[in-house]
Amino acid sequence: MAAPRSSAARIKRFADSTTPLVRSEWYVAAGSAEVSETPLARRVCGVDMALVRRPNGAVAILADRCPHRGYPMHLGTVEGDAITCGYHGIRFGLDGKCLAVPSQDRPPKGIALGVYPAVERGGWIWVWPAGERPPSGRSPPETPWLDDPAWTTLRGRVAAGANYIGLHENLIDLSSFSYLLRESVGAAGYAQAPFVLRTDARRVHVERALSGVRLPPFYASILGDRGAVDRRTLSTFESPGFQIAHSEIRFPDGRICRTKILHAITPADANATHYFWAVARDFAVDDSAASARQRDVAEPLFAKIARSLEAIAAAAPGGDANDVHLSTDQAGLELRHIIQTRAHAES
Amino acid sequence: MAAPRSSAARIKRFADSTTPLVRSEWYVAAGSAEVSETPLARRVCGVDMALVRRPNGAVAILADRCPHRGYPMHLGTVEGDAITCGYHGIRFGLDGKCLAVPSQDRPPKGIALGVYPAVERGGWIWVWPAGERPPSGRSPPETPWLDDPAWTTLRGRVAAGANYIGLHENLIDLSSFSYLLRESVGAAGYAQAPFVLRTDARRVHVERALSGVRLPPFYASILGDRGAVDRRTLSTFESPGFQIAHSEIRFPDGRICRTKILHAITPADANATHYFWAVARDFAVDDSAASARQRDVAEPLFAKIARSLEAIAAAAPGGDANDVHLSTDQAGLELRHIIQTRAHAES
Amino acid sequence: MAAPRSSAARIKRFADSTTPLVRSEWYVAAGSAEVSETPLARRVCGVDMALVRRPNGAVAILADRCPHRGYPMHLGTVEGDAITCGYHGIRFGLDGKCLAVPSQDRPPKGIALGVYPAVERGGWIWVWPAGERPPSGRSPPETPWLDDPAWTTLRGRVAAGANYIGLHENLIDLSSFSYLLRESVGAAGYAQAPFVLRTDARRVHVERALSGVRLPPFYASILGDRGAVDRRTLSTFESPGFQIAHSEIRFPDGRICRTKILHAITPADANATHYFWAVARDFAVDDSAASARQRDVAEPLFAKIARSLEAIAAAAPGGDANDVHLSTDQAGLELRHIIQTRAHAES
Repeated sequence: MAAPRSSAARIKRFADSTTPLVRSEWYVAAGSAEVSETPLARRVCGVDMALVRRPNGAVAILADRCPHRGYPMHLGTVEGDAITCGYHGIRFGLDGKCLAVPSQDRPPKGIALGVYPAVERGGWIWVWPAGERPPSGRSPPETPWLDDPAWTTLRGRVAAGANYIGLHENLIDLSSFSYLLRESVGAAGYAQAPFVLRTDARRVHVERALSGVRLPPFYASILGDRGAVDRRTLSTFESPGFQIAHSEIRFPDGRICRTKILHAITPADANATHYFWAVARDFAVDDSAASARQRDVAEPLFAKIARSLEAIAAAAPGGDANDVHLSTDQAGLELRHIIQTRAHAES
Repeated sequence: MAAPRSSAARIKRFADSTTPLVRSEWYVAAGSAEVSETPLARRVCGVDMALVRRPNGAVAILADRCPHRGYPMHLGTVEGDAITCGYHGIRFGLDGKCLAVPSQDRPPKGIALGVYPAVERGGWIWVWPAGERPPSGRSPPETPWLDDPAWTTLRGRVAAGANYIGLHENLIDLSSFSYLLRESVGAAGYAQAPFVLRTDARRVHVERALSGVRLPPFYASILGDRGAVDRRTLSTFESPGFQIAHSEIRFPDGRICRTKILHAITPADANATHYFWAVARDFAVDDSAASARQRDVAEPLFAKIARSLEAIAAAAPGGDANDVHLSTDQAGLELRHIIQTRAHAES
Repeated sequence: MAAPRSSAARIKRFADSTTPLVRSEWYVAAGSAEVSETPLARRVCGVDMALVRRPNGAVAILADRCPHRGYPMHLGTVEGDAITCGYHGIRFGLDGKCLAVPSQDRPPKGIALGVYPAVERGGWIWVWPAGERPPSGRSPPETPWLDDPAWTTLRGRVAAGANYIGLHENLIDLSSFSYLLRESVGAAGYAQAPFVLRTDARRVHVERALSGVRLPPFYASILGDRGAVDRRTLSTFESPGFQIAHSEIRFPDGRICRTKILHAITPADANATHYFWAVARDFAVDDSAASARQRDVAEPLFAKIARSLEAIAAAAPGGDANDVHLSTDQAGLELRHIIQTRAHAES
């Protein structure tokens, strides 16, 4: 007797744009400089949020929907540690507790404003959009270089009208460096370079090394063209919300220049992504002219990635069910499998 | 044996943006000045209509869709009491009867243009979008002040990209006066003022009184700031298409100034609303400078209401299923229940 | 015992905007002058395509979606008979065969770029969007006048934001000449003129003749107003992608002026249509001033047809299920029946 086909057999293996978003995770919601006493509206994982800086400097992240009639809280008024809804004047503490309802003596039972766990670190505000407190031990990724005076950082934010999975896949696989990103980080040999892939239940690591190559504009904008150097990059998918590339350039004299490229990837919803990038380096740290030159290369680079994902998303419906995979896609498929597994576990 | 759970148990109690529109009702389709021999296109309750003024001055409201191939009738040509479709030249009387089909001797059986009952009153054109003749005794609301030379009227029209239910709820509950509308009709005490609520099968009445308050800009623009006065407002939900607020201001010397604020609320479809407002007053009737000052307060006031409903509608999907209700919401919930009951009876 | 009602009984008789598109057919995808070595993106029957001119002058039509990760091929780089995807550098021959994958020694099994049969004829590029080779004997329609030096041709392209069925129906029935198109091809008697209708399994022919009429601007722009002439038009629906009108003007002295109005109708998708028109004449062939005058009449004429279809499509949902048919609609209904039958056979 044939065993019934298990429904699990029909579960997708690799996350795609139809996979539910993973809300039990840390995502960058905003840059520190964006958040003040005037509420900032932002959508994260399909949840509308209002970000407010409290008098003590801490950041509160509130549901951007008054629980009474749904008026956006970011249109409300903040005074001290309280926010007043702009529609009917209901007042909430920035901890979500209802403090006062003007039209009655005491607030109705059960009224409260949603709040989201927030952590500010390295110039970014991280949020846990599932709402409840994250399990112990689940902190936002460590990003020490963003705070370390021995490093200097460029950063920016790009909005992409496309699902976030394609951005993760793009970034983990450096073979596009030789084509899509040729003008900024291009290296003829990158697509062909052998790579080492390691994975565990939550992370994916890809390491590549190239010997005797010339620096592309992304680095040459700071270092100049020094002739042949060795390059080595370790890219890590840390979570659905974060990737990092550890890049090293080694000169013939043994000197090493290190760069950390941080990719904070935040789904606004299934069809839109906030892409916060940061580039930290441990060389020419005080050279602001070099920073300006690198920014001129970096901004078009990150924007081009966003535009390419939008170009793919604009195609007539049909989907990626028949996409052919290359050997360089292994890392991307591994991370899509991790995301798929996590989304399935959450739902 | 357990009784089967009745399907009625699952019927929603309070209308919301997913409730079918109530078509067996009078709605304002246009202001009188908008309608001429050149057809005016307007969508009411999801029905596209073309409004035409006949040679005798009466208004005809036609389906804006030729029954042949769907060409908009408002692009046709009106001559006398007939309209000719701009596509194939089919000619209809403004009573909907087909008069001629150019390509054949007699019109095909059954061809006719839909017509909608129309009444012009007080500078507004009312329509009954269900199409058939309204039951006897069902006339548009009485609005005698709009025609009465002892009163003077300001009026306008605002388009809101949101469902009409929220507009009804907004208007029947004056507690937003102290917040959303503070700058125009604001009165610190309004949200706290006790109110009397009366309902019958079709209408909802809310009465509020305030003693010893100062006039807000909406009235002070005409009357000046006269110090402390008494205010009293009776707000009535007359139908899914109409609300009216009867406002009285009583001065210490016993003089009374009356204002009628008429709200004609017309769903274009489930996500868009035409809001026709009129403000009639029995004081400073001939003072056109005062009218101009009041218009400067009124127009931003009504526009702000529309913008606030759009802000709520723009939120990420999620719905209002968990909205918390306040004691001041009783009137709004009563009218939503009436609309829900009527929509259910119609469907 | 009643026979069960066959499901076939519920199949629609006449194609409408909900009918699946017919992909096993020739459609004009572009004008010859639009296609060069730089790829041109175009959507045909819901399929995104990239059109490229090969070094030998032939046109290749490729799927506009790299089979790896869906990047649009029209953003790639063409060199000789090969195109390189702009994302990861995969190289395909213009016959669709994968030539190289930069990141690995040999292409993965099964990777290939979709290609579509293409024929260039008379200044138009025809495509067979079903992809596979068309059955033998199925060639694009003959359009000899477009190549013949004894004829001269005006042509253009109009984008219509509406389904293509309405365009076919519009064009086969000349009764709109007296109304919608009065200013360009108008003839008072056209709507009333008797017509002869012939059909076979795939084509519909309508013939009309008018005696003693004056030339409308479309012809008078070239011929001047010559007083009363005889006109005769044979309109043929050749396929879901093509109609042609054979028009003759006979002068009192027996001279005949012939015009072929070719309508290449290409659904982009269910809600958008590319309309390629061409007007070929065998008189005043070398008179470029006359051509310019006729173009001034023709361009607004074809644009007006597109705008009228968009006006119909913009109506509130409701559909055409209750459309009333006229005797002049017979030809349109016949062609809608042919399209419906073909769509059903394909699905």
